[in-house]
Amino acid sequence: MKRLLLLSNSTLPGEPFLGWAEKHIKEFLGDTERKILFFPFAGVTFSFDEYFEVVKERFGEMGYEALGAHLLKDKEKAVENCDAIAVGGGNTFHLVHYLQDGWIELIREKVKEGIPYIGWSAGANVASPTIRTTNDMPIIEPKNFESLDLISFQINPHFTEEQIPNHGGETRPMRIAEFLEINPGIQVFGIPEGGLVQVNGDSMQYKGIGQLSIFEKGKEVMNVSPGSFSY
Amino acid sequence: MKRLLLLSNSTLPGEPFLGWAEKHIKEFLGDTERKILFFPFAGVTFSFDEYFEVVKERFGEMGYEALGAHLLKDKEKAVENCDAIAVGGGNTFHLVHYLQDGWIELIREKVKEGIPYIGWSAGANVASPTIRTTNDMPIIEPKNFESLDLISFQINPHFTEEQIPNHGGETRPMRIAEFLEINPGIQVFGIPEGGLVQVNGDSMQYKGIGQLSIFEKGKEVMNVSPGSFSY
Repeated sequence: MKRLLLLSNSTLPGEPFLGWAEKHIKEFLGDTERKILFFPFAGVTFSFDEYFEVVKERFGEMGYEALGAHLLKDKEKAVENCDAIAVGGGNTFHLVHYLQDGWIELIREKVKEGIPYIGWSAGANVASPTIRTTNDMPIIEPKNFESLDLISFQINPHFTEEQIPNHGGETRPMRIAEFLEINPGIQVFGIPEGGLVQVNGDSMQYKGIGQLSIFEKGKEVMNVSPGSFSY
Repeated sequence: MKRLLLLSNSTLPGEPFLGWAEKHIKEFLGDTERKILFFPFAGVTFSFDEYFEVVKERFGEMGYEALGAHLLKDKEKAVENCDAIAVGGGNTFHLVHYLQDGWIELIREKVKEGIPYIGWSAGANVASPTIRTTNDMPIIEPKNFESLDLISFQINPHFTEEQIPNHGGETRPMRIAEFLEINPGIQVFGIPEGGLVQVNGDSMQYKGIGQLSIFEKGKEVMNVSPGSFSY
């Protein structure tokens, strides 16, 4: 059974890194020893090592051991030997560029086997079939826009209907409407900050703050409050 | 001599379409008959025809004739027969996807010959070497990130330092810093709404509201007030 914890963001204003997420991560992974393979590839303005150290410490505080995917030369063995996979946020294009270097199939197979997957922000985004609903700047050109394809819908993390006052850039709902125009038949889950979607095989739960917004071409937006839901 | 008018945006709040831009376009194109070849390919949630009709009317009011690039089957002839090129805003990925269908080289050559180029928003963005500094959602996968390459720097339209209050998504300066980290040696021109960069061969002018922000890796941001500047 596929198990995924897809978090909109790592950190809420004024809270420590993975603060709001901690209880959800612990509930999801359980009170057991875990070797979590961490992918720091979304980090751009800080090094993979720096990112890994921060995450290792936080997972350590939760009682789990983190391994840095960037430090492990044998990718197959690295994925084989882990009990969970975590993919951190940052820039989605940078992340998928590095994942496309031999990691995608390995992660996909491992998650199919039931190894839990945790992703926040860009790390949640890349669980989607493609990266076509990222908010990030395309600072690097990946091989293509294909992603981990662990779920059948697209994620839009940091979802908000707000906009900068008096600024004419497209709002998030406008951007998602553009996506649906070109990609009909695929749903977009807009997850607000402080919110997450948990996938347990065929069942799904929305957890955290606010409401999940599900967009589909030609339909009203479906707003989901915390709790189980089907779609 | 290359001549480009690169506008951050088409429309300011409460103003008509191309309202603030009108006097700059007229100054740029002059008081002469012009056949402007218009590219509506950035339009997504409205048709190319609809986009063209709106632009045709506005250019008509300014005394120019607009031709719709999407309606002309013979691309070489279309570019050959125009006196100016205009590329409209919308989604940059959608725009470049269609430009990559045989238009890029033709436009590049024509602009090298001195035919004036006007682009707003995504249309200004694609004058850059690549689309790596777009703000848009990658709703469609172009062949690659290469763009018209009419200038040696990257444009970031709708530039702002503002952000949505209490929202954790990256600010625009943070996104540009990510770009510079991966693409050192290339400058990014952040053009605020209501502002434009006019290129006349080797000389440049900033016009409109506010200040142009020029970003370069390892350097302080350079702020340029309206007037001529070199860089």
